[in-house]
Amino acid sequence: MDIASLIGLLLGIGAVVGGAALEGLHLGSITQPTAAIIVLGGTIGATMLSFPMRAVIAAAKGAVKIIIEPKLKTSAVVAEILRFANKARREGLISLESDLPTASDDFLKKALSLAVDGTDTKLLRDTMEIEIAHFEHEGAQEGKVFEAAGGFSPTIGIIGAVLGLIHVMENLSDPSKLGSGIAVAFVATVYGVSMANLFFLPMASKLKHHHQTAVSLKEMMLEGVIGILEGVNPRIIEEKLNGYVSHADRKAEHPAGGKVQAEAAQSTG
Amino acid sequence: MDIASLIGLLLGIGAVVGGAALEGLHLGSITQPTAAIIVLGGTIGATMLSFPMRAVIAAAKGAVKIIIEPKLKTSAVVAEILRFANKARREGLISLESDLPTASDDFLKKALSLAVDGTDTKLLRDTMEIEIAHFEHEGAQEGKVFEAAGGFSPTIGIIGAVLGLIHVMENLSDPSKLGSGIAVAFVATVYGVSMANLFFLPMASKLKHHHQTAVSLKEMMLEGVIGILEGVNPRIIEEKLNGYVSHADRKAEHPAGGKVQAEAAQSTG
Amino acid sequence: MDIASLIGLLLGIGAVVGGAALEGLHLGSITQPTAAIIVLGGTIGATMLSFPMRAVIAAAKGAVKIIIEPKLKTSAVVAEILRFANKARREGLISLESDLPTASDDFLKKALSLAVDGTDTKLLRDTMEIEIAHFEHEGAQEGKVFEAAGGFSPTIGIIGAVLGLIHVMENLSDPSKLGSGIAVAFVATVYGVSMANLFFLPMASKLKHHHQTAVSLKEMMLEGVIGILEGVNPRIIEEKLNGYVSHADRKAEHPAGGKVQAEAAQSTG
Amino acid sequence: MDIASLIGLLLGIGAVVGGAALEGLHLGSITQPTAAIIVLGGTIGATMLSFPMRAVIAAAKGAVKIIIEPKLKTSAVVAEILRFANKARREGLISLESDLPTASDDFLKKALSLAVDGTDTKLLRDTMEIEIAHFEHEGAQEGKVFEAAGGFSPTIGIIGAVLGLIHVMENLSDPSKLGSGIAVAFVATVYGVSMANLFFLPMASKLKHHHQTAVSLKEMMLEGVIGILEGVNPRIIEEKLNGYVSHADRKAEHPAGGKVQAEAAQSTG
Amino acid sequence: MDIASLIGLLLGIGAVVGGAALEGLHLGSITQPTAAIIVLGGTIGATMLSFPMRAVIAAAKGAVKIIIEPKLKTSAVVAEILRFANKARREGLISLESDLPTASDDFLKKALSLAVDGTDTKLLRDTMEIEIAHFEHEGAQEGKVFEAAGGFSPTIGIIGAVLGLIHVMENLSDPSKLGSGIAVAFVATVYGVSMANLFFLPMASKLKHHHQTAVSLKEMMLEGVIGILEGVNPRIIEEKLNGYVSHADRKAEHPAGGKVQAEAAQSTG
Repeated sequence: MDIASLIGLLLGIGAVVGGAALEGLHLGSITQPTAAIIVLGGTIGATMLSFPMRAVIAAAKGAVKIIIEPKLKTSAVVAEILRFANKARREGLISLESDLPTASDDFLKKALSLAVDGTDTKLLRDTMEIEIAHFEHEGAQEGKVFEAAGGFSPTIGIIGAVLGLIHVMENLSDPSKLGSGIAVAFVATVYGVSMANLFFLPMASKLKHHHQTAVSLKEMMLEGVIGILEGVNPRIIEEKLNGYVSHADRKAEHPAGGKVQAEAAQSTG
Repeated sequence: MDIASLIGLLLGIGAVVGGAALEGLHLGSITQPTAAIIVLGGTIGATMLSFPMRAVIAAAKGAVKIIIEPKLKTSAVVAEILRFANKARREGLISLESDLPTASDDFLKKALSLAVDGTDTKLLRDTMEIEIAHFEHEGAQEGKVFEAAGGFSPTIGIIGAVLGLIHVMENLSDPSKLGSGIAVAFVATVYGVSMANLFFLPMASKLKHHHQTAVSLKEMMLEGVIGILEGVNPRIIEEKLNGYVSHADRKAEHPAGGKVQAEAAQSTG
Repeated sequence: MDIASLIGLLLGIGAVVGGAALEGLHLGSITQPTAAIIVLGGTIGATMLSFPMRAVIAAAKGAVKIIIEPKLKTSAVVAEILRFANKARREGLISLESDLPTASDDFLKKALSLAVDGTDTKLLRDTMEIEIAHFEHEGAQEGKVFEAAGGFSPTIGIIGAVLGLIHVMENLSDPSKLGSGIAVAFVATVYGVSMANLFFLPMASKLKHHHQTAVSLKEMMLEGVIGILEGVNPRIIEEKLNGYVSHADRKAEHPAGGKVQAEAAQSTG
Repeated sequence: MDIASLIGLLLGIGAVVGGAALEGLHLGSITQPTAAIIVLGGTIGATMLSFPMRAVIAAAKGAVKIIIEPKLKTSAVVAEILRFANKARREGLISLESDLPTASDDFLKKALSLAVDGTDTKLLRDTMEIEIAHFEHEGAQEGKVFEAAGGFSPTIGIIGAVLGLIHVMENLSDPSKLGSGIAVAFVATVYGVSMANLFFLPMASKLKHHHQTAVSLKEMMLEGVIGILEGVNPRIIEEKLNGYVSHADRKAEHPAGGKVQAEAAQSTG
Repeated sequence: MDIASLIGLLLGIGAVVGGAALEGLHLGSITQPTAAIIVLGGTIGATMLSFPMRAVIAAAKGAVKIIIEPKLKTSAVVAEILRFANKARREGLISLESDLPTASDDFLKKALSLAVDGTDTKLLRDTMEIEIAHFEHEGAQEGKVFEAAGGFSPTIGIIGAVLGLIHVMENLSDPSKLGSGIAVAFVATVYGVSMANLFFLPMASKLKHHHQTAVSLKEMMLEGVIGILEGVNPRIIEEKLNGYVSHADRKAEHPAGGKVQAEAAQSTG
């Protein structure tokens, strides 16, 4: 679970609502169902019109994923590929056929399967890069759905506010209602701007980061399989794949990495 | 028909108008023909001055297309190309000449026809990529027309509002008219911002997605024809083209895909 | 003449001014010479400081070009290149030397002349692509001048408005002048935003489209001449160049295209 | 000297200040030292924090350069390179060694010196392109410093205005001071928006243009030297380099160009 | 220590606060803890939700780095690489093995180690470029965290202001509190806009510059090692690497550069 995302969400909403309460604002005065209807309904409508239905649903699922956060273990995948590389070097590329079902990832399995079938390097790279490009494009839409929602909600909040002000202006003859009328109108702005800045836009950014990590992992798998196919020395493959592991991880997992190396050597020894 | 687009459009407008009505606003007070003339006329004028006439007409037609939504059946095209690939492998590339008239798409037909004529790979790729680039550029304009309209309408709404405020300011001596005057002025803003956010900008985004799918389909056809021309194994071609099929489709159409495969094998067997 | 640009310009201004008049605004109250001086003078000054003098003059000329609209006849150029290609195929590349003075375009003439001189493909492509790149860069500045003006004018309109409001604020003691004072101040905003949205920005966009068409035509000429130089079959050259012709044109000019083809064949037969 | 820049600067400021004076505004009321301190100090502080000290100083010097405007004589450099090309063709590349000290530009000298030393084409191109990339990056920062200042100054003007309004609001009890208080507050906005739109942003744009011209000149020198190194016919080199000369210049300098050609031929004849 | 950053920060804040004080504003009236809670809490929350926890922490550390400023001595690294190049030329590439532990940088050490191991040029370049790309991507996030904070803080300031205004509007019946209430509301805007423009955005820009310098240094090391691996003449390597040294540095360090050169020659002589 991604604690940081949860803290960020609660801290943002808490600071705004709590700060307002500290100033003496009654929370009841910023609870306006009609403002919520205008801003949420308008934003969802505009977003649904903007994207294919499938992308909207994928984005909603992606938002849930953020909380659960699928840990992508880059270094574990490096170890797995090195194990394959060592075996291929010792027993030949064809010997990997029996290992295909154990591959931890569908993309890796497809790439290895093409390599075992004797596909040449260029064709394998082209085929898998089309796959990566499509995966990258599809996944990027999840972030863009939230980005679009974050673009629509403040302006729809302004529509709500202006509609409220029109309502106020029509009843100027009763000045006692002026203040509370304007207050009601402003709530739509608060909803629109808050949703965008405390939820939609940060969510878009977080989804983008998750997706980039997943794309980068696929690129690493492809580099690894091509290294195996070309018979590159496993030690050089390791150096190359390590370039994808973040520096923070490298230090943290150094002992593990060492163990994995040893283990890989052993299992292929 | 694209139900989601329709729902998005109705939900957006419904939430804004309905929310305003729930707040007690008389809908009559947001029905201002002169504001509509200023915002719509100004936006259409600015958009017509911005683009070639042809692009404006294409965009209007494109907006209609969204409702009718031409379903692009990527997987059906994959099956068609595989049928051609299997036949070419068995009976020679030249045997496809008789199948040319049955090709489901003009672009595919042109590419196959060049291949059958013995055009070399590089020339065929260059020729068809020019076609794709031009198609991409022309189609992208449809979305850009709506994007431009969505950029103009809020600022023209502001022009309408400021003109209304000038009118109000000139008649300050009669305070009883102040409120309703300002209300009238604000309606132009509501029109401009609503049109942009509930229609123009989402439409621009939806058109862009439709167009990207169409471009991607053409790229897939080109890859397929080049695979046929180079005599690549149909199974590898299938792996490559599957990279263009979205993951959601792949699962949904897996049985169909299997059938198509079988069918393709049969029709060429 | 580009009727659409004229209609767009008149419709935009007409809708805004007409709508304001329908609301009962005296047009005299939005005619403020000092506001015009501030907005126009400030915008022209900022634009002149932003660009080389030459670019500003080219942009002004470009704006005039929009009304006259030089029709770029892509399909006529395709026919001309095919005529050269057919002759070169029959009588040899060198035979085109006598046709050089008849080439309809300086760029085409220079490319053909290099080809006839025996320049090799790569050098010819490099040389002409430098020419295209420079032409593209220079022409793009015309649009950017209007884009910059469209960026400056609304903010300078706001400067004018704030200066007007400062003037009003200093004379608050005489409330009878308050309204008309604010009205005067707002006029600068209307000028700045209207100029940007009804003229400068649409003009920038239209200039960009014209320029892109001109660049694309040059790229087509280069592809054609390289095809001739490499002795590609004129029918393939035609297929390739047709990729540059917009689909709308292709249909509209199909009979003409046919005629041109025939004509080309004839003149070289 | 770049008269156009000077006119642009004076016209912009003159129109805004003069227009305000024509409206009857006392210029004294827009002369507020504290507003100037806030806007200028804040903008300079934010800009210094944004960039390396060296870039800020380079930008300040660049602004002075605009007034002095170093005329880059593209056509003179073309003539110089053609002179070298003709001599190298007649007397051998090595003969240029004695001409190295006469090269009019350090970049040209370094490229020629590498060529004379027998560096191969690819290495020479790589080496000089690194130089160009670094020069491009460093010079681009000058424009970005002004762009950043133009982004900061309006928002810091708004900070100044809001601080002024807070001051006004605290003294609401004395309504006679209300108007002048607000007027003072607004002056910071005028300063911030004016500096950005009449000076910083146009300056950023002009610096960018100057720098692009200088980069393009270096690219032309590199193409020329590579042409000499590869023994390309000087006439073709001339055609290639002419692609870098703007069309306006080409016409204007045609006679000169002819003379230069003749001169080059002579000096090498 | 980076004095310029410190001066920029202090100058910006000093000018704004000092200017406000000069206008007669009591600093107490812009000290509002609740406004600070809303703006800071909301901004930090939104930023934490936007980025992986690791990136937020790295950005905070990066901000500290700005003050300490690790001086990247490009010219010292050039001298180091030339020393290796000279030794490799005289005693063979393998002789560098003993110098590996003395390499001043991990990236340089890894590249040299691959070179000494006999990795071929393409594989070495690919491997190290993956490393650079990853380093570039990770480091770029530091700047983006501040950029995001600078985007969130002004809008959250506006949320704070609107909440304050709602509070004011609810208490319109007591006009004596109106002014001070609005003043309190505006403080949140001042906080949000000031933090963004005087700290977050300049910091994002400064971090980006630092990171670009570090990336450029790594690219220079890679070019140097590849030059050594390919046996390029050290003098040419020097010319190439000098392209990465800024012109200002080149002049300043010319004598040092000469000494270094001499030193390098000596240590390898």
